[in-house]
Amino acid sequence: MKKINDYLNPPKILVLGFAIIILIGTFLLTLPIATENGKGLSFLDALFTATSATCVTGLVVVDTADTFSTFGELVVLTLIQVGGLGFMTFGTFLFILLGKKISLKERLVLKEAYNNISISGIVKLVKRILLFTIIIETIGATILSIRFSFDMPIGTAIYYGFFHAISNFNNAGFDLMGEFRSLTDYVDDPFVVLTICSLITLGGLGFIVFNELYEYRMTRRLSVNTKIVLITTFILTAGASILIFLFEYNNPNTLGTLDSSGKGYGALFHAVTPRTAGANTLPIADLTHASLFLTIILMYIGAGSGSTAGGIKITTFAVLMATFWSQLKGKEDIVLFKRRIEMQTILKAITVALSGLMIILLVTILLSITDKGHPFIMYLFEATSAFGTVGLSMGLTPELSSFGRVIIIFTMFVGRLGPLTLGFAITRRRTKEAFHHPKGKIMIG
Amino acid sequence: MKKINDYLNPPKILVLGFAIIILIGTFLLTLPIATENGKGLSFLDALFTATSATCVTGLVVVDTADTFSTFGELVVLTLIQVGGLGFMTFGTFLFILLGKKISLKERLVLKEAYNNISISGIVKLVKRILLFTIIIETIGATILSIRFSFDMPIGTAIYYGFFHAISNFNNAGFDLMGEFRSLTDYVDDPFVVLTICSLITLGGLGFIVFNELYEYRMTRRLSVNTKIVLITTFILTAGASILIFLFEYNNPNTLGTLDSSGKGYGALFHAVTPRTAGANTLPIADLTHASLFLTIILMYIGAGSGSTAGGIKITTFAVLMATFWSQLKGKEDIVLFKRRIEMQTILKAITVALSGLMIILLVTILLSITDKGHPFIMYLFEATSAFGTVGLSMGLTPELSSFGRVIIIFTMFVGRLGPLTLGFAITRRRTKEAFHHPKGKIMIG
Ligand SMILES: [K+]
Ligand SMILES: [K+]
Repeated sequence: MKKINDYLNPPKILVLGFAIIILIGTFLLTLPIATENGKGLSFLDALFTATSATCVTGLVVVDTADTFSTFGELVVLTLIQVGGLGFMTFGTFLFILLGKKISLKERLVLKEAYNNISISGIVKLVKRILLFTIIIETIGATILSIRFSFDMPIGTAIYYGFFHAISNFNNAGFDLMGEFRSLTDYVDDPFVVLTICSLITLGGLGFIVFNELYEYRMTRRLSVNTKIVLITTFILTAGASILIFLFEYNNPNTLGTLDSSGKGYGALFHAVTPRTAGANTLPIADLTHASLFLTIILMYIGAGSGSTAGGIKITTFAVLMATFWSQLKGKEDIVLFKRRIEMQTILKAITVALSGLMIILLVTILLSITDKGHPFIMYLFEATSAFGTVGLSMGLTPELSSFGRVIIIFTMFVGRLGPLTLGFAITRRRTKEAFHHPKGKIMIG
Repeated sequence: MKKINDYLNPPKILVLGFAIIILIGTFLLTLPIATENGKGLSFLDALFTATSATCVTGLVVVDTADTFSTFGELVVLTLIQVGGLGFMTFGTFLFILLGKKISLKERLVLKEAYNNISISGIVKLVKRILLFTIIIETIGATILSIRFSFDMPIGTAIYYGFFHAISNFNNAGFDLMGEFRSLTDYVDDPFVVLTICSLITLGGLGFIVFNELYEYRMTRRLSVNTKIVLITTFILTAGASILIFLFEYNNPNTLGTLDSSGKGYGALFHAVTPRTAGANTLPIADLTHASLFLTIILMYIGAGSGSTAGGIKITTFAVLMATFWSQLKGKEDIVLFKRRIEMQTILKAITVALSGLMIILLVTILLSITDKGHPFIMYLFEATSAFGTVGLSMGLTPELSSFGRVIIIFTMFVGRLGPLTLGFAITRRRTKEAFHHPKGKIMIG
């Protein structure tokens, strides 16, 4: 019994579980009834689509609406919801497990960070996650359906409303608009832009933050983790909106032709979507280099831990920035919102950030070898988009060679599972060392 | 008296001193006798060249041999030698100052790290640095002069021998070959390639390492700092040689047309030069994207602390990698060569690495705005080359707008002074805090 438990530790269950879901999805998408042409998808393209949907990425090698039958689209939607919810609940579960472990040592700290959530509250928690998800998705779907009903028959509008609400709350980036054009038709439409931006942002906060906000009426207090996620999300969204607004102001292919409120909606959407939703209202390949590089940085950062979003996570970014700032100011303690950050947290942040960076660098170099002849930024962009499970594309993904497709499939899977399971593995396997080496002096900088 | 001392702390002396040297150089290069056409250089181009030479970078807006008179070339060479030696001696001096401060607390550790060098030994040390420099440069110049004498008159060969020995030992990247072609004529010439690779590598080790190697006959021991620099230099050089050999093997514009030993020399040179010398034997713009990206990563890393090279420095890279690895293995201590790395060293490494990254990201975005219409990788490449004071160029620098030139001038200056003075500032200003905030729990990854 002990052996089975050792073998099937939580990270392995996560990896295996998602691999099985992806394989089932792949099988379903290869069925003749899955595609409009009645032939079914090739194995590699089906594997790509199933991985992209389950890992809530949104990179596509075939256009969703143009290729799939309604059955195929519903398979994709189900994979998104299972993948998204799966990560949310499993991420929350893992987080509580981590907390549980630490709580033996530092109950007081825990009490603040996790609002007294304990293993015994798991069932209640999962119920609450489900409830939150259903409520938010339904509200989003209703608003979108009403808006879409002006452009299409009411039945289609409702279907589209639900599909896009679910896809965007789960930060999945899939759409039904056809011709790989995502939401470009709605670039200056306040209903669509504001609704989808809200769905994306809420999905990216993560359930722990969610739950704290929900309970704020009673508790009247937020943990430092939640404060970091909320404030950093606000700063990144506002900062990126302003920068993209400026970078694209005169670009005739993006914001240039829109009026000033249209420019604002376009900039806001493209500040929100890189972290890590994947829908777009502007043609990505036509963005300026400045906006593309900013997007790459935002895709790398991602959103909240234990959320449906990918990337190194917003807290990792905030901890590294706080470290940087404290060091520049010559402070001994690294402090965020009047709370000292433990060295262990900083070491974990370095590890997560470096692992993300190394994966992106490796994938960029590999893609430039397997799929020659494209501008360099395309490789960097698609690699970061896949790692961050973002789904934005400059157009390279549909043109990828089979090798390139396999590389992106692996990257999405690793990107989705990596940081979380890595974080868990680090905290779990830690051992007190009996022997300490003497200190060594090293010149830095 | 105290006030003057407070104002003129070592980092400020360094910044001021180099600014003055650059301005003198700028003035000299605008003189009519400095250029072959007898008109002198424009102020901005002279400032650019003087900054590039003093900061031992090697990025050029005008070709050195084609533009400058012998007087102008000697001004450039003098700036290189003053800049290079200045940083070596000043860097060593700073390092000893740092050591001195720490020694009050941890004499035993210090004793190992610095081989008992103390402030009182400064004069002896500066003498030794000068002696090392003269000996190594003379040996290099002699070999190169002999080799060049087969291609040109003996007087020119000796001049060229000294110029390229000094330029490369100081990792300055300037050359006299004309037409921006650097050492491409000597791509498969073992004398030139091996001599210059040796000069670059020795110059990049830094004087502390140098001195330890020199004293090894007596002491029979190396500090952990020296071991890290030597081993990491070897790993990076060998690894990059193999990768570039593979990436360029079939590239008809680079290694493709050479025989296998020529391919080896070409790959070796381009593994060595990004850290952070700046001469090239292959046409940079024709390298594959994989090699270019690898070069960017190597330029960012750089070579040894307190050496003539730039970048975040090899020890910073090694400490971050060791942190990453220890965390993956779940180890409590971060250990390199049986020596525990202090948390303070890791925090400093994060700060130096992040500051480098942020400068490069900012400069890349700025260049893409001020100088539109080039491939993205060019901006990233020139920004990293300037920050790392490397001097390799894909060809963007000579075409830069005035804004772009000013940005690169600033980047070279900050890149040269930044990490070192930053490192010093961090260690110096540290204050014990009277009040500690309580710990906060944060979700990472
Ligand atoms: K996504
Ligand atoms: K250089």
